[in-house]
Amino acid sequence: MKKPKKLLLLLLLSATAIQAQKAPENLVQYAHPMVGTQKMGHTYPGATVPFGMVQLSPDTDTLSYELNGKYNPDIYKYCAGYNYDDRTIVGFSHTHFSGTGHSDLGDFLIMPTTGPLQLNTGTADRPQSGYRSAFSHKNEVAEPAYYKVKLDDHNITAELTATTRVGFHQYTFPGTEPAHIILDMMAGIYNYPDKNVWSYVRIENDSLVTGYRQTTGWGRTRTEYFAMQFSKPFKTYGARKYDPKEVYRGFWGRFDQTQGWPEQAGRQLRLYFDFSTVAGEKIKVKFAISPVSAAGALANMRAELPGWNFDQTRRAGQQLWQQELSKVTIQTPNRADKENFYTALYHACLSPTIYQDTDGQYRGLDQQTHRAEGFTNYTTFSLWDTFRALHPLFNLIQPKRNADMVQSMLAHYDQSAEHMLPVWSHHANENWCMSGYHSVSVIADAVLNGAVPPAQAERALAACVATARHRWYDGLGDYITRGYVPNERSGTSVSTTLEFAYDDWCIAQLAQKLGHADLYQEFSKRATNWQNVFDPRANAMRPRLADGSFRPKFDVLSTNGQGFIEGNAWNYTLAVPHDPAGLIARMGGNRRFVPHLDSLFTMHLPDSFFAETEDITREGIIGGYVHGNEPAHHAAYLYNYTDQPWRTQAQVRNILARQYHPTPDGLGGNDDCGQMSAWYLFSALGFYPVAPGSGQYALGSPLVHGAILHLENGQQFTIQVKNQSAKNVYVQQVTLNGQKLTQPFLAQQDVAKGGTVVFVMGARPIWK
Amino acid sequence: MKKPKKLLLLLLLSATAIQAQKAPENLVQYAHPMVGTQKMGHTYPGATVPFGMVQLSPDTDTLSYELNGKYNPDIYKYCAGYNYDDRTIVGFSHTHFSGTGHSDLGDFLIMPTTGPLQLNTGTADRPQSGYRSAFSHKNEVAEPAYYKVKLDDHNITAELTATTRVGFHQYTFPGTEPAHIILDMMAGIYNYPDKNVWSYVRIENDSLVTGYRQTTGWGRTRTEYFAMQFSKPFKTYGARKYDPKEVYRGFWGRFDQTQGWPEQAGRQLRLYFDFSTVAGEKIKVKFAISPVSAAGALANMRAELPGWNFDQTRRAGQQLWQQELSKVTIQTPNRADKENFYTALYHACLSPTIYQDTDGQYRGLDQQTHRAEGFTNYTTFSLWDTFRALHPLFNLIQPKRNADMVQSMLAHYDQSAEHMLPVWSHHANENWCMSGYHSVSVIADAVLNGAVPPAQAERALAACVATARHRWYDGLGDYITRGYVPNERSGTSVSTTLEFAYDDWCIAQLAQKLGHADLYQEFSKRATNWQNVFDPRANAMRPRLADGSFRPKFDVLSTNGQGFIEGNAWNYTLAVPHDPAGLIARMGGNRRFVPHLDSLFTMHLPDSFFAETEDITREGIIGGYVHGNEPAHHAAYLYNYTDQPWRTQAQVRNILARQYHPTPDGLGGNDDCGQMSAWYLFSALGFYPVAPGSGQYALGSPLVHGAILHLENGQQFTIQVKNQSAKNVYVQQVTLNGQKLTQPFLAQQDVAKGGTVVFVMGARPIWK
Repeated sequence: MKKPKKLLLLLLLSATAIQAQKAPENLVQYAHPMVGTQKMGHTYPGATVPFGMVQLSPDTDTLSYELNGKYNPDIYKYCAGYNYDDRTIVGFSHTHFSGTGHSDLGDFLIMPTTGPLQLNTGTADRPQSGYRSAFSHKNEVAEPAYYKVKLDDHNITAELTATTRVGFHQYTFPGTEPAHIILDMMAGIYNYPDKNVWSYVRIENDSLVTGYRQTTGWGRTRTEYFAMQFSKPFKTYGARKYDPKEVYRGFWGRFDQTQGWPEQAGRQLRLYFDFSTVAGEKIKVKFAISPVSAAGALANMRAELPGWNFDQTRRAGQQLWQQELSKVTIQTPNRADKENFYTALYHACLSPTIYQDTDGQYRGLDQQTHRAEGFTNYTTFSLWDTFRALHPLFNLIQPKRNADMVQSMLAHYDQSAEHMLPVWSHHANENWCMSGYHSVSVIADAVLNGAVPPAQAERALAACVATARHRWYDGLGDYITRGYVPNERSGTSVSTTLEFAYDDWCIAQLAQKLGHADLYQEFSKRATNWQNVFDPRANAMRPRLADGSFRPKFDVLSTNGQGFIEGNAWNYTLAVPHDPAGLIARMGGNRRFVPHLDSLFTMHLPDSFFAETEDITREGIIGGYVHGNEPAHHAAYLYNYTDQPWRTQAQVRNILARQYHPTPDGLGGNDDCGQMSAWYLFSALGFYPVAPGSGQYALGSPLVHGAILHLENGQQFTIQVKNQSAKNVYVQQVTLNGQKLTQPFLAQQDVAKGGTVVFVMGARPIWK
Repeated sequence: MKKPKKLLLLLLLSATAIQAQKAPENLVQYAHPMVGTQKMGHTYPGATVPFGMVQLSPDTDTLSYELNGKYNPDIYKYCAGYNYDDRTIVGFSHTHFSGTGHSDLGDFLIMPTTGPLQLNTGTADRPQSGYRSAFSHKNEVAEPAYYKVKLDDHNITAELTATTRVGFHQYTFPGTEPAHIILDMMAGIYNYPDKNVWSYVRIENDSLVTGYRQTTGWGRTRTEYFAMQFSKPFKTYGARKYDPKEVYRGFWGRFDQTQGWPEQAGRQLRLYFDFSTVAGEKIKVKFAISPVSAAGALANMRAELPGWNFDQTRRAGQQLWQQELSKVTIQTPNRADKENFYTALYHACLSPTIYQDTDGQYRGLDQQTHRAEGFTNYTTFSLWDTFRALHPLFNLIQPKRNADMVQSMLAHYDQSAEHMLPVWSHHANENWCMSGYHSVSVIADAVLNGAVPPAQAERALAACVATARHRWYDGLGDYITRGYVPNERSGTSVSTTLEFAYDDWCIAQLAQKLGHADLYQEFSKRATNWQNVFDPRANAMRPRLADGSFRPKFDVLSTNGQGFIEGNAWNYTLAVPHDPAGLIARMGGNRRFVPHLDSLFTMHLPDSFFAETEDITREGIIGGYVHGNEPAHHAAYLYNYTDQPWRTQAQVRNILARQYHPTPDGLGGNDDCGQMSAWYLFSALGFYPVAPGSGQYALGSPLVHGAILHLENGQQFTIQVKNQSAKNVYVQQVTLNGQKLTQPFLAQQDVAKGGTVVFVMGARPIWK
């Protein structure tokens, strides 16, 4: 009989496989959430699972956006709630962005305390003046899906873990009476005056609390629901309202709502829960959130975290991280490189975030409840950043998830009153942050990779075209008419023109793929519009006036409102990712272009540059190359389009070595929802998507000594690196599946279908 | 064959029936929505269907609750948005209370205008300073389900009608350019500063607008959703925000959101829509609301009002009113009496209001979405008023609807964080207005009438008992312990004690009916607590101190914080509806009680009384009897419990004649969601529920010349009145189904099961 034999063989193979996988390396140990929490990284150290809806993390301050009626510059340090330089923790809140340069969230801050009840936060220099606490990093542990800290002022050990939709707190109390757990509904990140729109809290019974919080701000109409379950009944509870004046008290005035009153509503609200504890007693809190309803939050809790086993939940969370990190296994003798790599992969798998209840219901951009049918709904699309390398990374190592993200963007489009694909969207809000319409890049890249079914692809193209034809959008009307955004129309006229041109090229590729010749023509023509802001005399991109002339006043180094954003003319002149050859030709060919590009990495910037440029540190630049801001991310790879690709290899290794460290201050700029990390991951593996949508990666110089991409299709793409060392940064030869490459590029499909690439490295540049 | 014969007979009978019903009297003509819109009635003249969720009505002012930082006393005139004395209309809003003495609602005010766009409301003395308009009553028509007015300043004729959940506007424009329709999201009734919490509006396409409005105030956490459909596309549109300062503009600042921007959000918001019109052109607006979502509102519109036929909708609405009014047909030669009767029946069928979408979904007290299974969900429970006669009226002429109201109260209880039955609840909010827990009266009355199934009845009893045992509630702890609410504990200690005692008696009746002897004992005992605030020396109910002594300072006429609310000691001393015999005994028997009660109707009140007493006019009193406030509503019937019931007959006819007129100023006090009207209806028919839950009506003196109650069980209860006239107010004899009555009472069951009562009237009292 045949069948039993096959079965036996399968069993044997499985056993062997199990044997081989018996002790996979623990990759979670290399991922350090604390990286980037100091200086400009704007990451958070708290507990979350891959793409989790809950990001449960300590906030070291909850500043008001205004100080004495003016912008408070310190607010910027708290985009992710935590600043490594701080010495006090205010509490642990449940939602955080990773690496953004503006912010929101920080919902539902919880703090365990001992001693007399204090409901104000206190100040950083006098933590004992409020409920916050001093802490020190020596008593702090930050791992994927786990965070621990000792709260010195309260002598409480706080531990945090999470499932996708539930934050799990474990507080070990010292037995000091009284003990409290505070729920601060007012606290938040980027706490503008009047940001809090409404809060509603119900004490359902002696251990369950539900409610919601509405805010405005970056997310203009944001509502988050919660259900909070204590492991032990509280003895007493109470609330304080901090609204300047209650609008109406009336018959409510008969009731003392400050103690034991089970229903609270107002604009500014804090609650507390009192417990009796013995020394070493652990009180746990499960805190589920939902974009839809308190009932949804409670259902999320019951589905994901029915029990109370903290350690098991932590292990389950770390197992999820192990699975996620295992999608790329690397070889390197340098622990720091491994730490950089898996920390980057960790940071790359924080955003976009899942945004739906376990039953598929989510809040749409129209503020209505929808159900995701056939996909998982995501939010937190920082697309100006992430179209560059983060989504191309997902498109390669997790195309299904990326396709769900595309579906989420299309749902956003369907729900958009403006009929726009997302620009920067979070939690059922479009904040319009930055420029372009880079959803189209993500969509084109995904469709071209075959991850999006044909019917969806047509729908996606229609959404892209509609988005790109809105004349009201950010100078787009002028751009369509004139071929560029005039300087009079916009403070970022040049960068916007360049971004539109690239996005249009993406739409053209998508149209071509789907056989729409007319659209291909239309958008291919628009894709050449970058030429309209190139001034040959300045050999640079330059603001152009409505009359066609270039703006006379022009400083190629300035980023200050002269037509660019997060970059100067020097950097943006390179921003033609879809036509480097055309750009090089316009800039005088290789002979003029290569030294020009060289000088980017060697120039000396004036101090004024740092005063006016956002989101980066002095460490975040190399010459005039600003790695901390995204527009330059493809720059080092442009040598590939000249006759000197070895210069790419040198610069990539230089950037990898200088811009990433496995330390709190290890990121030279905002991680920007994973884009900085995705740059690292691609570059460390030896290739980079210069123009997503092109189906092509530009080769660089691998940092790893070898790697395997474990692809969703069951295949592996193996990267072998011979003669690798810190000195041997130059690629001597590359073979793909045994065939020598003649150009420094890899086809996306050749990677995606699996295979082996072999880099042979050396200390001297030889590849021409 | 037998069957065909039967069929033939049925057909013949049906034909006869049709013949007989061919031209039922148009009762709608007698119901005048304008009655009560002047002085204290607080009714609204606009368009609504019976118990409709939409009350689409003109608002003649939208005052702020504060004037120069202090309470604005004029606000009280606008509890229903409309004041007959006014000469300008601000616009037409979609939700209104009928007859309340405090207020809320007035959501989504719409105003059609011509000429230059004005987005401020303007002032009453200078309507041309804003979008409001002068009008005159000669150009005004107010019928059930129909309202029409000429807006003089804009030369626009506005007509309104409604279905249950959709307001339908028809505006006839003069052809003057430009023409606008304004949607004011800021306007509202009882417009406290900061009452508006949030507004969100989406322009879905060129004729559909959706959104929601959140407010605080009397309803602390209130959200109303809408969908607004124009019959004709608007040319242009725009919005203005009146928030003192936008919290965050950021990248939103790039867009001009004041014109043609399809998504608006903020605390204070007005929108406008511009049209081209020709002279006489009608633009119609369908405006659906929902307690759940904008999608729910749109579904309501599509289900209830798919087309655009205004006249048909008006006819359908008036047909619903005809059906509702036809439940009681009366005979009288006096048109004014008929108008009073059907106007009262109209007002009695406005509240409680339906509060669910067509699919059964509604917002619960917990702010979550629920679905009403097996019942229709209602809100607007002004129970301190309506337990007295309105719910007993429903219990008689529409017990099914009343049972749904009971189910709605039980759903409220299930969703209540405080585990309380409703006190005064509206739109998913408990405003705690007034005192007692009178839900229990409505529930007991309904259960005793057999309208509530046994399983529900047990659940209802449990809710009543839980509600009545909350020690924190309004002095209830003291009441349970001491048998009365001490004067130190409450400014309304006596009236609250009396109300608790009656409510407890209701619970006892319910417990007895369901066979719970222990609960019957417990609450029967509590029902005697009225005795604890009776001071024999004063021969009156009197505030009692915690030490057991009566409060020394005591004015039997004062209503001002001396232990009573909306009534003085004089009136409240009669507030033992469940034990008049016991009360009379305590007050010295008939000999002392009858002249005491007589003096109530003849005394002269000092001017100070009017200064301190709410909600009534001088016309609203007879001697010291204040018909405009509810606590005295049963007083005239108390003679029935003495040896001189003829005095009840005289007083009831006196009150009927003096307190109700078919004119705008025809109500002597707040209609209070139909309670004043329900008093009229019962009294005009000849009987009244002195103690709901007793199963007994006290006889009065019918005003009608005859009546038929068309009962839901298919039976009729016929009231024949012989020798009726304005002078013949005294009942000479009453027979029920041919049997002479020996006591001036009717059993509820004898009416509810159908039958005939015959009153023989005369000019002189003879009944002993």
